[in-house]
Amino acid sequence: MIYELLEKHKADFFVMYASSKDPNFYYAVSMKLPDPAFYAIGEDGTEILVVHEMERRRAERESRVKEIVSLSDVGFYEKVKELGVEKALAETYAEILKEHRARKILVPKEFPSFLYKQLSEHFEIEIVSNPFSKLRSVKKSWEIKEIKKASEIALNALKFFLEIVKKERRVEELRRKVELFVYEKGALAEDTIITSGKRSADPHFVGEGIIEKHVIFDIFPKIRDSGYYSDFTRTVIIEKDEEIAEMLKACVEAKNEAIKIIKEGVEAKEIHDKVCDVLESYGYKTIRQKAKEGFIHSTGHGVGLEVHEEPKIFNSEEKLKSGMVFTVEPGLYYEKVGGVRVEDLILVKKNGCEVLTKFSDYVEVIP
Amino acid sequence: MIYELLEKHKADFFVMYASSKDPNFYYAVSMKLPDPAFYAIGEDGTEILVVHEMERRRAERESRVKEIVSLSDVGFYEKVKELGVEKALAETYAEILKEHRARKILVPKEFPSFLYKQLSEHFEIEIVSNPFSKLRSVKKSWEIKEIKKASEIALNALKFFLEIVKKERRVEELRRKVELFVYEKGALAEDTIITSGKRSADPHFVGEGIIEKHVIFDIFPKIRDSGYYSDFTRTVIIEKDEEIAEMLKACVEAKNEAIKIIKEGVEAKEIHDKVCDVLESYGYKTIRQKAKEGFIHSTGHGVGLEVHEEPKIFNSEEKLKSGMVFTVEPGLYYEKVGGVRVEDLILVKKNGCEVLTKFSDYVEVIP
Repeated sequence: MIYELLEKHKADFFVMYASSKDPNFYYAVSMKLPDPAFYAIGEDGTEILVVHEMERRRAERESRVKEIVSLSDVGFYEKVKELGVEKALAETYAEILKEHRARKILVPKEFPSFLYKQLSEHFEIEIVSNPFSKLRSVKKSWEIKEIKKASEIALNALKFFLEIVKKERRVEELRRKVELFVYEKGALAEDTIITSGKRSADPHFVGEGIIEKHVIFDIFPKIRDSGYYSDFTRTVIIEKDEEIAEMLKACVEAKNEAIKIIKEGVEAKEIHDKVCDVLESYGYKTIRQKAKEGFIHSTGHGVGLEVHEEPKIFNSEEKLKSGMVFTVEPGLYYEKVGGVRVEDLILVKKNGCEVLTKFSDYVEVIP
Repeated sequence: MIYELLEKHKADFFVMYASSKDPNFYYAVSMKLPDPAFYAIGEDGTEILVVHEMERRRAERESRVKEIVSLSDVGFYEKVKELGVEKALAETYAEILKEHRARKILVPKEFPSFLYKQLSEHFEIEIVSNPFSKLRSVKKSWEIKEIKKASEIALNALKFFLEIVKKERRVEELRRKVELFVYEKGALAEDTIITSGKRSADPHFVGEGIIEKHVIFDIFPKIRDSGYYSDFTRTVIIEKDEEIAEMLKACVEAKNEAIKIIKEGVEAKEIHDKVCDVLESYGYKTIRQKAKEGFIHSTGHGVGLEVHEEPKIFNSEEKLKSGMVFTVEPGLYYEKVGGVRVEDLILVKKNGCEVLTKFSDYVEVIP
């Protein structure tokens, strides 16, 4: 995919400058680097990772990149005094790329401006969507295994929540207990959404105070060892309410109708349109109609090393591929009523899909 | 500080485009935004935060920025079809800035290239060091309180480690137990370094296998609610070794001599030079001499919303300010012997400093 991209743009190298907190960088170098480093991949298959001297040995051992260059091997520290850190970095990277006869390079959209500007003096540069985001969107079997582990923990976390909510109604305390449960299972859940009442109308509000008549429970645990996420939501009914029940019915139907059409080759927007079709058929407004209340976000997003990654399940014509993992999460949000959302995590297959978060769509805890 | 910067560069706005995973962005907008958003601060005090419609209400409630603009209010979604997402974003932000009569803008070094390039067509742009990094380097009293909480947890984690290491020698199991201990206390420790034997010569290797004669225990817990870190290291002696003992003695003396000279007004490089002076007086090589073994990293770094942030305690002439919090962490690393490091977290005061990680420098667990 990267070679095709380089060929298409007639470029010699694709380069990144980031720490391993950037999942694309982490995926490319396959090691943890807490501070930013430089990675380049050439059209002839050359891959270079430039790190600080203190990371050299570790990089030689841990990274899948074979050619490790230490900044101190290439005169970086001598340059710093004269040029300052940023310019010295840029000049050092430029020299390395020129040694490999680079003339034109590609950088990702998020490439930092200071390097973009400096390297522009040496090379023709084109800005592209990071090809590693696309590469990462199709999961390898060991990645799917990790996401399945995370999904299993998400489902168990909801079961655990359904037990403890019978006795505990304080949201902060519920969240603390649920996240500790997840941690003990080897994953990490942060900002778990437990929202209730009218404020659940804010899709990203994490929730506070006392549980009211219904709860959006949205958890996205990450396996701590591997860094792979799941993402899963159910709306839990604590006390019956007709308006909420109707909204929930529409969301469940929208989710399940959308899941039915998922398979390799379908376009992302077909999934999104199906969700909008169903919700609109119930009389709710959607983002497709530019609504400010109702269904106001996209249908879903990829999940992997990030909770939000490629592919976007919205209005694009991108064709789904076998091995993609993403959410389908219709929600309805009205300031005067509150919000409702159901979310499953889906693995695309050749002739259909697999739901990685199998759980009843209707969940009640009526005391 | 930002107004001075704008004035110095004769610029109208400083702008950022990031999610709240970027600590500078989080500090500026004081709310969690999982997806990237746009923030601008003008020389007249104007502050604007541009978010997706689904974040509008939450932003109005949670952010300290008063002027919240939703992308759907400014015709973004109409532009997307024609221009694609990136160009539509750039054009939308450009319009907003032009409404505020911006002609010249400043962006941080890490500003993404795609926006830098697009906005260059509308404005004169200069790339600067993010002024929020500098702002963040001097801590407010409530921030210091959070860092002290994290430091307390770090010290207790070492005490806990010293207990369990008497019976457990497997590094992975020790790490799991220590990090669970930290989690239960309300913080999060990831990649806790527990290295032993020769491989401890890699400063950022987290460690694996069986504990040998000495252990570098380096923990950086983050308070989960507030996001503030501590950072703390001790070398634990399990079995006496003369070479390691001598290295440790040199590091302890280097650390303590450096701490003695810390106060407001001292230059960062004076601290670093003091550490190098002491280590060199013991006959060890240092980074100042471009050594590849010995003391091969900087003396320290700021700690706050990031484990590694401003100020860098290395060779800069930056003057320390009261309220700065940073590490002093001399270490010695030899491939044939292993590594040794001691690290304290320091709060700079007017006439001296406060050690936030008070703990014995020499720690032994001799069975």
